[in-house]
Amino acid sequence: MNLARVVGRVWATRKLPDLEGLKFLILQPMDLESSDDVGATLVAADSQQAGEGELVYYVTSREASFPFDRQYTALDAAIVGHVDRIDL
Amino acid sequence: MNLARVVGRVWATRKLPDLEGLKFLILQPMDLESSDDVGATLVAADSQQAGEGELVYYVTSREASFPFDRQYTALDAAIVGHVDRIDL
Amino acid sequence: MNLARVVGRVWATRKLPDLEGLKFLILQPMDLESSDDVGATLVAADSQQAGEGELVYYVTSREASFPFDRQYTALDAAIVGHVDRIDL
Amino acid sequence: MNLARVVGRVWATRKLPDLEGLKFLILQPMDLESSDDVGATLVAADSQQAGEGELVYYVTSREASFPFDRQYTALDAAIVGHVDRIDL
Amino acid sequence: MNLARVVGRVWATRKLPDLEGLKFLILQPMDLESSDDVGATLVAADSQQAGEGELVYYVTSREASFPFDRQYTALDAAIVGHVDRIDL
Repeated sequence: MNLARVVGRVWATRKLPDLEGLKFLILQPMDLESSDDVGATLVAADSQQAGEGELVYYVTSREASFPFDRQYTALDAAIVGHVDRIDL
Repeated sequence: MNLARVVGRVWATRKLPDLEGLKFLILQPMDLESSDDVGATLVAADSQQAGEGELVYYVTSREASFPFDRQYTALDAAIVGHVDRIDL
Repeated sequence: MNLARVVGRVWATRKLPDLEGLKFLILQPMDLESSDDVGATLVAADSQQAGEGELVYYVTSREASFPFDRQYTALDAAIVGHVDRIDL
Repeated sequence: MNLARVVGRVWATRKLPDLEGLKFLILQPMDLESSDDVGATLVAADSQQAGEGELVYYVTSREASFPFDRQYTALDAAIVGHVDRIDL
Repeated sequence: MNLARVVGRVWATRKLPDLEGLKFLILQPMDLESSDDVGATLVAADSQQAGEGELVYYVTSREASFPFDRQYTALDAAIVGHVDRIDL
C-alpha cells in the first residue's frame, strides 16, 4: 500500500457503466520519511468517505476492485483506509 | 486509474486476432496538480469513443480487458472514462 | 521480492473491515549493492513480527494477501521474511 | 500497451521447459511524441514474426502468456502487433 | 522479462513456511544496449541453478511462482533462464 494526500476530485459523466456510483478522488503519493510528494497524482475510487487534505492509504491493480465487491470491474486504484498516526 | 490526454492513434494491420476491431489511441499521462506531462506515452484500447485532445482516465494491466468482455485478451491498457471536470 | 528497512508504523482505525487485525509497517526499499535507499517508502502488512530497523524482504501486488489466507483482500504489499545475511 | 523498437535477440539454451520454442527479442521502449527511447531495454516473447528495427507494441505481466495459449507460463512480456502508422 | 546479472545471495532463516527450500539470489537489472545497470537490485527465487556473475533473465509478479508449481506462494520474482548470447 502507499500513502497519499487527497488533493481533489474528478467528475466524469461519460464512463463505463460498471463505474457508476463510485466517487473518484485525486491522490498525491507521499514519502513518509521526508514528507515529500513522490511521483505523479493518480485517481482512486473511494471506499472510505475520504475528504480533501486527508492522509489515506490505497491499493493498486486488481486488488482495487475488492472493496466494492466488483471482481471484474475495470478499476485499478482504491482508497482503503484513513491514516490516524505515523510512528517513525 | 491515471489521467491522460489523447495525443494520437496507432494503426496496426498485422496483430493478434484477439485484438481485431479495437481502436488504439496514444495517451500522454498527466500530473493533475502541475498539469505537466508525466512519463512516456502509452497505447490504450478505447472503450469510450475518445477523440484527440480529450482528457480521459484509463486502467492498466489485467483490468484493461474487462470493458471489452474479453477476459483473456492480451490487452493491458484501456480508456474507461472521459473527464468532465477536476476540482483541486 | 525487494529488500527494505523497517522505518516506522502506521495506525489506522478507520479502514476496510478486511484489514482488521493486520499490523502495517513503513518500509524504505534499499539497493543492496550501494546500501542506498531507493524510491519512496511504502506500507506493508507484516506476516513476520518484524521490528523497527530490521532488514526484511517483501512481496507486492496480489501475492501480498497469500500469507494471510485472504485471497481477495485489498492488500498489495506484505513482509514475508527477515534477512539474516547477504553475500555480495 | 507500449511501443518499442526491436533492437536484438536473446539466445538461451538452458531455461524453463515451458519456454522452449519461443523466440525472445530485445525491445527498446519509445516515447511516441518525442521519438526518444524511454527506460531500459526488456526481453519479450514474439507472437508476430517481428524483425530487427521494426516498431511493435507489446503487453506485459500476466497478459503476455495469452498469445501462446499458455496460461500458466512464466512469461511477462510479449509482442502482440506491428505498428503500420502513427497519427499524432 | 528483464535481464540481470547475479550479484549475490540472501540468507533468511525466518520466513514464510511456503518459501522454505527456495534459493534467493540478488539481481542487478541491466540495459542491454548500454550494458549499464538500471534501477535497484532485487531478490529473485532461482529455478535455474544460476551462479554469481551469470547473466540471466527473470519474470516478476504472479508469474514468478509458476516455475515452482506453487500457484499461491508469496513470491514475485524468479530466474527462468540463462542467457547464452545476445545479438544487437
